[in-house]
Amino acid sequence: MSSSFGQVFRIHTFGESHGGGVGVIIDGCPPRIAVSQEQIQHELDRRRPGQSEIVTPRKELDTAEILSGLQDGVTLGSPIAIVVRNTDQRPGAYDEMAAKYRPSHADYTYDAKYGIRSASGGGRASARETIGRVAAAAVARQVLDSLHPGIEVLAWVKSIQELNAEVDPESITAETIESNIVRTGDPAMVEPMIERIKAIRSDGNSVGGVIECVIRNCPAGLGEPIFDKLEADLAKAMLSLPATKGFEIGSGFSGTLLTGREHNDAFRMIDGKVRTLTNRSGGIQGGISNGETILFRVAFKPTATIMSNQETVTSDGENTELQGRGRHDACVLPRAVPIVEAMATLVLTDHLLRQRAIQPIS
Amino acid sequence: MSSSFGQVFRIHTFGESHGGGVGVIIDGCPPRIAVSQEQIQHELDRRRPGQSEIVTPRKELDTAEILSGLQDGVTLGSPIAIVVRNTDQRPGAYDEMAAKYRPSHADYTYDAKYGIRSASGGGRASARETIGRVAAAAVARQVLDSLHPGIEVLAWVKSIQELNAEVDPESITAETIESNIVRTGDPAMVEPMIERIKAIRSDGNSVGGVIECVIRNCPAGLGEPIFDKLEADLAKAMLSLPATKGFEIGSGFSGTLLTGREHNDAFRMIDGKVRTLTNRSGGIQGGISNGETILFRVAFKPTATIMSNQETVTSDGENTELQGRGRHDACVLPRAVPIVEAMATLVLTDHLLRQRAIQPIS
Amino acid sequence: MSSSFGQVFRIHTFGESHGGGVGVIIDGCPPRIAVSQEQIQHELDRRRPGQSEIVTPRKELDTAEILSGLQDGVTLGSPIAIVVRNTDQRPGAYDEMAAKYRPSHADYTYDAKYGIRSASGGGRASARETIGRVAAAAVARQVLDSLHPGIEVLAWVKSIQELNAEVDPESITAETIESNIVRTGDPAMVEPMIERIKAIRSDGNSVGGVIECVIRNCPAGLGEPIFDKLEADLAKAMLSLPATKGFEIGSGFSGTLLTGREHNDAFRMIDGKVRTLTNRSGGIQGGISNGETILFRVAFKPTATIMSNQETVTSDGENTELQGRGRHDACVLPRAVPIVEAMATLVLTDHLLRQRAIQPIS
Amino acid sequence: MSSSFGQVFRIHTFGESHGGGVGVIIDGCPPRIAVSQEQIQHELDRRRPGQSEIVTPRKELDTAEILSGLQDGVTLGSPIAIVVRNTDQRPGAYDEMAAKYRPSHADYTYDAKYGIRSASGGGRASARETIGRVAAAAVARQVLDSLHPGIEVLAWVKSIQELNAEVDPESITAETIESNIVRTGDPAMVEPMIERIKAIRSDGNSVGGVIECVIRNCPAGLGEPIFDKLEADLAKAMLSLPATKGFEIGSGFSGTLLTGREHNDAFRMIDGKVRTLTNRSGGIQGGISNGETILFRVAFKPTATIMSNQETVTSDGENTELQGRGRHDACVLPRAVPIVEAMATLVLTDHLLRQRAIQPIS
Repeated sequence: MSSSFGQVFRIHTFGESHGGGVGVIIDGCPPRIAVSQEQIQHELDRRRPGQSEIVTPRKELDTAEILSGLQDGVTLGSPIAIVVRNTDQRPGAYDEMAAKYRPSHADYTYDAKYGIRSASGGGRASARETIGRVAAAAVARQVLDSLHPGIEVLAWVKSIQELNAEVDPESITAETIESNIVRTGDPAMVEPMIERIKAIRSDGNSVGGVIECVIRNCPAGLGEPIFDKLEADLAKAMLSLPATKGFEIGSGFSGTLLTGREHNDAFRMIDGKVRTLTNRSGGIQGGISNGETILFRVAFKPTATIMSNQETVTSDGENTELQGRGRHDACVLPRAVPIVEAMATLVLTDHLLRQRAIQPIS
Repeated sequence: MSSSFGQVFRIHTFGESHGGGVGVIIDGCPPRIAVSQEQIQHELDRRRPGQSEIVTPRKELDTAEILSGLQDGVTLGSPIAIVVRNTDQRPGAYDEMAAKYRPSHADYTYDAKYGIRSASGGGRASARETIGRVAAAAVARQVLDSLHPGIEVLAWVKSIQELNAEVDPESITAETIESNIVRTGDPAMVEPMIERIKAIRSDGNSVGGVIECVIRNCPAGLGEPIFDKLEADLAKAMLSLPATKGFEIGSGFSGTLLTGREHNDAFRMIDGKVRTLTNRSGGIQGGISNGETILFRVAFKPTATIMSNQETVTSDGENTELQGRGRHDACVLPRAVPIVEAMATLVLTDHLLRQRAIQPIS
Repeated sequence: MSSSFGQVFRIHTFGESHGGGVGVIIDGCPPRIAVSQEQIQHELDRRRPGQSEIVTPRKELDTAEILSGLQDGVTLGSPIAIVVRNTDQRPGAYDEMAAKYRPSHADYTYDAKYGIRSASGGGRASARETIGRVAAAAVARQVLDSLHPGIEVLAWVKSIQELNAEVDPESITAETIESNIVRTGDPAMVEPMIERIKAIRSDGNSVGGVIECVIRNCPAGLGEPIFDKLEADLAKAMLSLPATKGFEIGSGFSGTLLTGREHNDAFRMIDGKVRTLTNRSGGIQGGISNGETILFRVAFKPTATIMSNQETVTSDGENTELQGRGRHDACVLPRAVPIVEAMATLVLTDHLLRQRAIQPIS
Repeated sequence: MSSSFGQVFRIHTFGESHGGGVGVIIDGCPPRIAVSQEQIQHELDRRRPGQSEIVTPRKELDTAEILSGLQDGVTLGSPIAIVVRNTDQRPGAYDEMAAKYRPSHADYTYDAKYGIRSASGGGRASARETIGRVAAAAVARQVLDSLHPGIEVLAWVKSIQELNAEVDPESITAETIESNIVRTGDPAMVEPMIERIKAIRSDGNSVGGVIECVIRNCPAGLGEPIFDKLEADLAKAMLSLPATKGFEIGSGFSGTLLTGREHNDAFRMIDGKVRTLTNRSGGIQGGISNGETILFRVAFKPTATIMSNQETVTSDGENTELQGRGRHDACVLPRAVPIVEAMATLVLTDHLLRQRAIQPIS
C-alpha cells in the first residue's frame, strides 16, 4: 500500500537506487489522451543529476521507456508502465555505508523496520524513487491539459537558508524560473543563492530551504471534505518527499499571528464570479478549492550527505565514525522544484477525476 | 472515500452539525481489547463546547452510544459503531447563513462542489464532525495500551498569536496540560493566554495559534516508505482538521536555516540502543520512526466566525453584508488539543497494525 | 477493510444480531439525488422476518432511521448513515449456542479467527447484517434512476431443490415475482415450492436452491478490465452473502459442454446498434458490459439451522450434541431475493460512477 | 484501481499483448523472504504458449526480469517489479481484427468503454496479462512457505466438455497433474482429453471445461467476515480470469439439492482438534477457513478464437464476416491450471498477512 498514491488517477512506484531500475505504473488514466514522451523526458531532465554546476555531478541520463498503456502516443485507458534503468552504479563507493548508519538518512530506520536494507546507496529511500513520480506527473499534466485546459502548476525556490526570494505568485512564469539554474523566481536572488550553494559545497557542507508552489486557474470544487481535503492531500504529497520537514498553505504559520477580522477573506462578486478580496485561505476552504490561486510552501532540510566525518554507529551496534566522501547535492532544492510540481499535479489530477465521478465539472 | 481514514485500523465518520447525529465506524480493530466507554466519554468531554469559560457556551453533552462491536466491554473484532445525537439544534439562528456565504467558511466551496449545501450551520464542515474522530481515537488509545503499552501522545497549546509557551516535550505531563483551561504546557502562559482569548472575544474577534504534539516511547520501525511515510500521514491527518494551515515536524521551517553539519543527528549507542544525540529529525527518518521522541506542530488560523459585519455574497450571486451574531469559539485551540492527539493516535495505531502484518514488532 | 464494499459508491456496514443495532454508511453518493425513505423501508420490508407464512416468524420491524447525508429528502453528497435498531432480542433462547458450535454456522470459525465471538445469535455472521446492504442499495437504486434511468435489476427464485422455475429473463416483471410469497418467476412453481418449504419445515429440516438475477438496459461500457471485471465484482458480491456456494454468469457451468462454434455470440447491427444474436456471454465480455441483458445465478445451500439434534463440539473442545430448537427459516431464498438484487444494484452503481470518472457515459 | 488486487499483499499488473511487455509490481511483501527466480520462471513456463503439442504454438519464452525489491535473492520489503518482454509480435496477422469485432472477445466492449482499443491482438484483454499474476504468485508462494509452511495449492483439469476426471482432493499430487500435458488429475482421462482437444483443434473449433482447485493445510481463521469473505475473494479472483463463467465452492450448485440435515457438517474432536465429519462447506464457514480442505471449481467457456468464418460487425457499424485464421489454443484449460493456482495463492497470502495485522496466527 505504501508505494501507491491517488484514488482514481493512481500511481504505483518501484525501484531502488541500485538494481535494475526505477519506475511507475499509472492506473486509472482516462483514455484517448495524447501523451508526449518528450514531455515526460523533459520533466525527468529537470530533476536528473548532472544538469548544472550546482547539483550532484552523477551521470544519470534517466531515459524513460514506456512499456504499456499507449498506442501511437495516445492512452488506451490501461495501466501505463514507465521504466528508467539504473546505469551509474558504483556499489564500491558505498561499502562503508553498508556497515555504518549515515546520520539523518533512513539507513537505521529501514533496518529497524525490515531487518534488512539495501546494501548500497539509499535503496528505496534514495531520491531516485521520485523519478517514477515525475514521470507519472508528466502524464497527469497532459490529462489536465486535455480535460481542463489552463491549470498552471509552478514551483520555485523561495529561500535557501535566510536568502529569501520575493515572488508574485500571480505573475511568476515558468520562463523566469527555468532561466536560472537555482530555479528561484526572483532574479535578484539568483546569484546570491548560487554563491551560497557553491560556498557551502566547497566546505563539504549542505543547505536547505523552502520551495513555494502556486496552482493557478484551478476550478472551484476540487477536494473532498473530511480526510481527503485538497490541502490534506497536498500536505501528505509534500511530506512524502525526501528531506521535507514542513508544509503550510495560504497564511500558514504566520497567519496564526492575525485576528479573525484581519484574516478572513471577504467575498465579492467580480466579473460575475464569486471571488475573495484577499487570499489568506490559499485557494482552499473547507478542503475544497474556491477558484482562487492555491499557494503553499514546503520546507526542505539541509542535505544529510555531507563531506565531514560524523559520529555514528554500525549495524552491529558499535560506535564509529563515518567518513565524508562521494558525490552529493549540497542543496537539493533546484532539483526538488519539478518534484514539488509533480506531486501537486498528481493530487490535482486525481481530485479532478474524483469530482467527475460525482458530478460534471463546470 | 473521503470520510475514511487509515488502512488497517480504518475509520469512517458521518454526520452533519444539524440532523440526527454524528459518529463513526471503526473497522479493523483487533479483537479482545478491553474498551472503556468512560474513556471515550472522557475524550469527548475534552472536546465538547461549554466545557469552560473560554469556549463557546453551546450546550452539547455529546453522549456517545456504542451500537456494535463490543461485548461486555471487549472488542469482538467487528466494526465498532459509535453515535452521538445532535441535540442543541437552533436552525433559526442560522437563517441568514443559509443565504449568505460566511467568509473563510466552507459554505461557498460546498456549493461549488455539490450544487447543494447544508442549510443551517456548517453541515459536514462543522467541527462537530471531529466527534467521530475523537471517539475512534479513544478506542485506538486502548488498542495501543493493550498491544504496545507505554506510547504517550500529548498535545498542548504552543502559542496563541505571539504568546509563546516554553515547553519541554520530554517531560511535559497530561496533568500540567489539563490543569488549565487553555491547555497550554507552560504555567507562565496560562493567564496571558486566557486574558488574550477573553479580550478578543469581548471585541467580537478571534485568534489562532499553534498546537504542539509529542509522541513518546514510539517503537522504531513504524511508518511506510514512500507515500505513507509516518510524517506524511501525520501531515495529512492534521491538515484534514478544520482551520489548520500548516504542519511541521522536528526542525521544521526553522531547520531550513541550518547547514547539514548543524542539522544532522549523530548516532550513538546508549544503554545498548541506537540513539541520536540530537533530534532535529523529530523522531522520524525516511518516513519511519527511529525510536526517538516524535514532535510536530500544527498551525490553526483564527476562527472564521466573528461578531463583526463582513462583506460577502449571497448564494444567488449578490453582494451583501453578513451580520455578526450567534455563539462562537473566539479561539479553537483549547478544544483542538484533544483532536490533535486523536488524529496522531489514529495514525500511530494504524501503522502499528500495518507493521504487524509484515513482521512482529519488538 | 472487510466491512466496506465498492470503490466510489462505497458502503460500510456494522452491527451484530444482538446489541444496539445494525446499519450502514454510504460514502461517495452523488449530491442532489432525491431519496425516498419509503423506498428504503419498502426494500427492508421485503427482506425482514415475519413477512409471510413461509419465513421465520421472528418479529423484527426493521425500521430505518437516516442519521445524516440528506436534507429535505435530497442527498448532500456527504455520508448517509442509516441505522436499524435491534428489538426482538431473546438472548436466553441462545444460551446453548454460546457454548456449542452450531454445525455449518460461523461459530467455530469466528472463535478461530478472533479468539472471541458473539455470545448469542450469529453476531456479525447473522443475516441481519444484510439490512445495511439492502438499505444502501435502496439509495443506490435511486442514484441509478436519477443518473441513468431505465436500468432494471430483478431477481427471483429459480429453483428450490430440484423444483425448477421456467422464467424468461427478458420479460419477467417485478409484479410477477412479488405476487407470490416464494418470489419465484414461474406461476406454475409457486404452489409446489411453497408446499416443499412447508413440508420441510414441518420436518424440522431445511432446503436451499438457486436465485437467478437479470439486469436489463445496462449501458455498454461498465466494468473494469482485469481484477474489477463486472462479473468478478458480481461474483464477489454474491459470495459475500451468507449461505451462498456458487455463482455463474451467462452460459455458466453448462456452457463448458459446448464448443466455441456453438458458444460464440455473433455480432450484428440491429436498429443501428451493435448487438449479439445470442447471449451466452451473459451481457458481459472481457469484464465489461456489452449492452445485452446481464444474467447470473447464485446457489444457496440449505439453511444451517435445523430442528434436529446434531453432533458437535463445545468451545472447550468436548464432543456434545446440539438440540434443535428456536425459530428459523426453513428456506432463505424468498428473503434472499431482495438481497441479491441489492448487491447487484450496489455493484452497478459503483461501476457507473467509476466510469463517469474516466469518461462520460452515453 | 482495476489492475490492483489484494489489500496487504497487493499486486499491480500492466501490459498489453503487443507493446513493450507485461508485468507486475508486488507491494506489501514481507522482508527477508528468500525468493527463487527459478521458481518464478518455472511457473511462467507452466503457463506459456508452446509448452506442449495441445496448446498454441506461439513462441513466447516469457523470461522474467526482476527490476527491484530483491537483494541477493532476499526480499527487502520494498516493491518487487517483474517485467516480461513481448517478443513474438506479428501485428500483421491481426490486421483484420483491428477493424472487426471478434465474437465473444472483448474488442467491442473495450471500444464501448474507452472509445479506443488496442489495434492488434487482445491488448489488455489478452491472456498475456496473466503473466504478471503468475509471477506475483510465485513470490507469494515463497512467502507462504516461509511464514506458514505446509499450505498446498493444487489445481487440475476436472472436465473438458463432458469428459470428467475422478480425483480425490485429499491425495492428489502435483506430480500426477504435471505428468500429463492436459494437467488432469485422473490418469484414465489423460488420453481421452488429449484426443478431444486434438480432434476439436483439427476441426478449427474449441472446447472449455472445469478446473478444480484444492487448498490443503490452510490454517483456520483466514478470511474476513462480510465482504472480504475468503470464498468471496476466491470467487472474484477466479471470475477475474479471462474466459471464466462460474465458480462454486464445497457442495456448490449441487448442494442446493440437499436438505440441511444432509448438508450440515457435524463437528467432532479428532486428535485434539475441532474437525468436521463431512466437508460440504468446502473448508470455509462464514467466510473464514475452518482448517478443513478448501475445494472449489471454476468454469471456463470454450475459447472464443476459432478457425471458422463468423458473423460480426466492424468498428464502423457495418455487418461483416470474420475469417478464422492465426494461432489459437483449442482448449485453454491446461495452461489455465497454473493461473488458477496463482490466483488462489495470491488470495491466501493476502489473507494470511491481513490476519497477522489483527492477531498472531497459530
